[in-house]
Amino acid sequence: MLDATRYATLFEPVRIGPVTAPNRFYQVPHCNGMGHVRPRAEAAMRGMKAEGGWGVVCTQEVEIHPTCDLSPAAEGRIWDDRDLPYLALTTEAIHEHGSLAGMELAHNGSHAANQFTRAPALGPSHISNANGNPRQARQMDREDIRNLRRWHAEATRRALKAGFDIIYVYAGHHMTTAHQFLLPRYNDRMDEYGGSLENRVRLTRELLEDTLEICEGKAGVAFRFAVDEMLGADGMQAAEEGRGVVELLADLPDLWDVNVAGWENDSLTTRFEPQDGFQMPYIDFVKQVTEKPVVGTGRLTSPDMMLGLVSKGVLDFIGSARPSIADPFLPAKIRDGRIEEIRECIGCNICVAADNQNVPIRCTQNPTMGEEWRRGWHPETIAAKGKQDAALVVGAGPAGLECAMQLARRGYHVTLADRAAEPGGRVLAEAALPGLSAWKRVADHRIYDLQQRANVDLYMSSGLDADQVIELGIPNVFVATGARWRRDGRGRSMMTGVPIEDGAQILTPHDIFAGAKPDEGPVLIYDDDQGYLAGVLAEHLARAGHAVTFVTPASAVSPFTDYTLEQHRVQARLLELGVTLHLSHVLSHVAPGVANIACGFTGRETEVAAASALLVTERAPETALFDALKASERAFNHLELLGDALVPGLIADAVWCGHLSARNFERDPSAIEADWFRREIVDLKQEA
Amino acid sequence: MLDATRYATLFEPVRIGPVTAPNRFYQVPHCNGMGHVRPRAEAAMRGMKAEGGWGVVCTQEVEIHPTCDLSPAAEGRIWDDRDLPYLALTTEAIHEHGSLAGMELAHNGSHAANQFTRAPALGPSHISNANGNPRQARQMDREDIRNLRRWHAEATRRALKAGFDIIYVYAGHHMTTAHQFLLPRYNDRMDEYGGSLENRVRLTRELLEDTLEICEGKAGVAFRFAVDEMLGADGMQAAEEGRGVVELLADLPDLWDVNVAGWENDSLTTRFEPQDGFQMPYIDFVKQVTEKPVVGTGRLTSPDMMLGLVSKGVLDFIGSARPSIADPFLPAKIRDGRIEEIRECIGCNICVAADNQNVPIRCTQNPTMGEEWRRGWHPETIAAKGKQDAALVVGAGPAGLECAMQLARRGYHVTLADRAAEPGGRVLAEAALPGLSAWKRVADHRIYDLQQRANVDLYMSSGLDADQVIELGIPNVFVATGARWRRDGRGRSMMTGVPIEDGAQILTPHDIFAGAKPDEGPVLIYDDDQGYLAGVLAEHLARAGHAVTFVTPASAVSPFTDYTLEQHRVQARLLELGVTLHLSHVLSHVAPGVANIACGFTGRETEVAAASALLVTERAPETALFDALKASERAFNHLELLGDALVPGLIADAVWCGHLSARNFERDPSAIEADWFRREIVDLKQEA
Repeated sequence: MLDATRYATLFEPVRIGPVTAPNRFYQVPHCNGMGHVRPRAEAAMRGMKAEGGWGVVCTQEVEIHPTCDLSPAAEGRIWDDRDLPYLALTTEAIHEHGSLAGMELAHNGSHAANQFTRAPALGPSHISNANGNPRQARQMDREDIRNLRRWHAEATRRALKAGFDIIYVYAGHHMTTAHQFLLPRYNDRMDEYGGSLENRVRLTRELLEDTLEICEGKAGVAFRFAVDEMLGADGMQAAEEGRGVVELLADLPDLWDVNVAGWENDSLTTRFEPQDGFQMPYIDFVKQVTEKPVVGTGRLTSPDMMLGLVSKGVLDFIGSARPSIADPFLPAKIRDGRIEEIRECIGCNICVAADNQNVPIRCTQNPTMGEEWRRGWHPETIAAKGKQDAALVVGAGPAGLECAMQLARRGYHVTLADRAAEPGGRVLAEAALPGLSAWKRVADHRIYDLQQRANVDLYMSSGLDADQVIELGIPNVFVATGARWRRDGRGRSMMTGVPIEDGAQILTPHDIFAGAKPDEGPVLIYDDDQGYLAGVLAEHLARAGHAVTFVTPASAVSPFTDYTLEQHRVQARLLELGVTLHLSHVLSHVAPGVANIACGFTGRETEVAAASALLVTERAPETALFDALKASERAFNHLELLGDALVPGLIADAVWCGHLSARNFERDPSAIEADWFRREIVDLKQEA
Repeated sequence: MLDATRYATLFEPVRIGPVTAPNRFYQVPHCNGMGHVRPRAEAAMRGMKAEGGWGVVCTQEVEIHPTCDLSPAAEGRIWDDRDLPYLALTTEAIHEHGSLAGMELAHNGSHAANQFTRAPALGPSHISNANGNPRQARQMDREDIRNLRRWHAEATRRALKAGFDIIYVYAGHHMTTAHQFLLPRYNDRMDEYGGSLENRVRLTRELLEDTLEICEGKAGVAFRFAVDEMLGADGMQAAEEGRGVVELLADLPDLWDVNVAGWENDSLTTRFEPQDGFQMPYIDFVKQVTEKPVVGTGRLTSPDMMLGLVSKGVLDFIGSARPSIADPFLPAKIRDGRIEEIRECIGCNICVAADNQNVPIRCTQNPTMGEEWRRGWHPETIAAKGKQDAALVVGAGPAGLECAMQLARRGYHVTLADRAAEPGGRVLAEAALPGLSAWKRVADHRIYDLQQRANVDLYMSSGLDADQVIELGIPNVFVATGARWRRDGRGRSMMTGVPIEDGAQILTPHDIFAGAKPDEGPVLIYDDDQGYLAGVLAEHLARAGHAVTFVTPASAVSPFTDYTLEQHRVQARLLELGVTLHLSHVLSHVAPGVANIACGFTGRETEVAAASALLVTERAPETALFDALKASERAFNHLELLGDALVPGLIADAVWCGHLSARNFERDPSAIEADWFRREIVDLKQEA
């Protein structure tokens, strides 16, 4: 236990205009794939952050008008009074714990495609839709600008009615009209809203003034602003116009919420930016320019770093999105001196991926994230055990570790066994690859927790067969034996496998994890998984000096990483490392030293040299133990398959599955069944 | 007027098990981006089909259980009784017009990613998710199969409770568990559900038997089955196992609904399959094998073809998805001898694109599609005019034609003028490109309609300036002057334009439409629009004998056409025509004879020969006339900008915009405003 007073500074109240935040922990606006589409889930999730000690909890971006309709994305919406009941659920959930509720109003310029409303999109200039839709935004005329100010003002009044304490003007991530007006690339206007920086700032200034006038005495006004686009001289830079904007508006807002643009730079993964607090060099000037409080972000998870940022006068508030997702109770744990209990964000952006796929947020570290309303999961509490006393968990990968930890927290005597020498399973293996070392926190957090408990026996280097499991005599068995990458090339594109001639060196990711060295000569990697792994393996092998040929049926390397905002960096890195890419190609034949690949469009075959072929295609669940136990005479009280052994997926899926199994153990089966059906349904009677 | 009795055969009632369809017009199940997400919109849209004379109107695929959760897609859902109220809205809307309501129950195998429920996906084998998600489906064991049968049976009972008259077992589009069991590529089981065709059919047979038992005397049971995968010997073929399945199940279902797989083959666009009725050669054997009625599809729009198919014994029902979208009143128009009034489907798949983007359906030909509930639009009726008498529409492109036609239908005296010699605008230009000739129907339908009316004056070759418009003295002016493709390269990737040296031959799509010939030597096409147009232009120029180099920042040619199910064919065709592709590259510089392109990932520059550069990047709205009229002293009663001149988009957008303007003319401004806000909202009180 640390001395809790050490961090007392972080728990000082701070004024934001007319309101006062109870402490310096500030959940900045972040998307969660819930919003107006899943309003009760939204409220419960934000409420959990407040319960965990975040002094300010904000919404995600909230559409203020049908001209910025982000459908089918599940963002917030405050078009009219019919949105107030759902928004009030959120403010109530936040206020219940004494925190302030922040509302990020957004008008989305060319970022909005208005796919539901079909309204014309509005921007500073006539520009293309920012998300690839073959339609454009219209250059706003003076009436449009007056309308926008009116919509923003009306949304502000509504937000106050819903109980929000902080109202945002948002100019960040290239996603809003205000931000697009600031940037010459987007804004080629010749009127008083274009040209000089002062002119480009005009709309933002007007929005801030309008909002301040309406909020006076009732709510603080925050300005979220990207000080740097990380484009060098091709974009806004913190040292140039970024600073200029802060100088022009210095003490106008009640709070500065500063970051970098675009989103892929603001939410960098650990794979491409291992440094926590990486945004500080961009934003540390802000407090020198304004007297108003400043909040900043950039994966701030270390309490000492937080303390340093406040005491050095860089920040007044510790802003957080991802660390508050990985651990909603981060502030409470610091307050209570339980720092080692913090579930540190691993910076994998699975949270971001969910929002980008328009489904509810999830988190690799925190399986309860997004389940606060639907399943009633609390990240810190779990029901005590029922009648059973002991459980065996076979497999100490992400599913097994999580399951064992939660069973132990419930009070069972838990035996956790794995054939490997170290616990962690695939997490250890993948974390050893370039850029993924932070992923090890998934195992570390759970291993640490298990080690603190007297009711846990951890047996490593203990591969168990069915007889040995039966011999142990533990009546409740959870089998989390993982999955193996297939060696036959079967996958999405080659559903019956790839023809492979004798003598060809075939590798799977498991071989690489186990230290296998490809034969001398070029390594062909075939990525039919199209997740992240093959791309990381290519980097690993290229860095180890191998000539790497990367073949995939996808048109881009690791297409799933588009959702985690990494795809551009992944492909750039492989190209920089000299990896040869054959995109949109399937692997049709492998022979010793050579492989045939076929164009996915024309079927035309090409021969490529391949001393070895590393197949990243599909996984076979390891169910041998489970099948044998199921077939045995012995009737277990409980026998369950979980994690990748049940169905191969992401590490986040495995952790979630392990959590689910632990929660559901000894629950009423009909309650377990009912949970799958919980959802939010459209009101058929509400006025349209 | 034709003799209506000529088509009397099409209006005969036909039995489907215990129920009787009032005629042979059958709207087969098709997606619409509404479903459980937008239930009142769904009901109104299906009801409109029934009103238009479709004797059977089906839902889209309807998820039967949380293990086949298609979120965020807006499909149907029948998980439990809480879905019944919304489904009953649909059956009521269909029954109101005397039609039968069909329910397409679906369990989606590896097609479902269960992104909302997080339930394990279930398939015949351990296989990858079909939509690129890095997670897999689990091979179903016997208990899973029993569960699936139970879920399907429960969904059937629920569907009957909601009033459906026809219940589907669905094995098509590779999208369902039943279909995946049928196909050896998906099914590598060694038990009684795998191996022989009889074994692979077992699950389907069981589902059919279960459904028949539950429906006996109450509803017909339809089997939707893809007889051919269009993969040759690599897949199921109509002449081989496709026929085998029909033989094995011949008279078991009450109705055969047959088509081809996958969806991209079933819903071929006119661009790649101009032939209406193209599926007949695959499905015409079915009636020889079964005594039960058969429905088939494949863009059946000609009443004579329909008649021929029925009288030749190929089909009992004229199945339709897209033609029923383009004209919900197609049956009524045939019945009433108003064949020339049919709005023929152009086969562009904009309807499909909307569903694929998880937003409500739209249609290029029928702007009221998807607006039945939200805006109360009816495809055949429109409010009579108000106090005003005359309107001028400037521009006879898609927006102007639609606006003029609807204003004329409302009873205004309409003057329509265009500087071109022929009406149609961009529709004419684009329809002249390879594969797009059917698009001309957008203009033809409207021109024909306008020509029938006494209250329309059409002036072609009549470019009007502001003075001339004022001189005409018409107090209500609609300006639909379109947009011009930019000549400076400005677009998504080069937001301030492409540096172009003097002497370089720069072309835009308009130059090509106007017959400009590129200089001798390779033509570089730069596609920053990323819609369909640049890909079609590449095909056009390659077919005309030019060496074509296609450069785009996208990783695939015409990425938007993925949503219209065409992307694979587009890129294959360009490759087959010898077009050189530089994907993921931006155009950084153009000089006479040569251009520089830069890798979007590394920035590395490459020089490519380019005798000319055709820039397909972004459009500038043509607002000169509108701006001049707005600035003139003359106060019009009504002056409005519409279509691409307001905001450049798809042809469908322009038509919709023209329709909107015509509908809203002389309406109460507050009612116009309110329409933008109409939406379906989640019930905060319903039990979870």
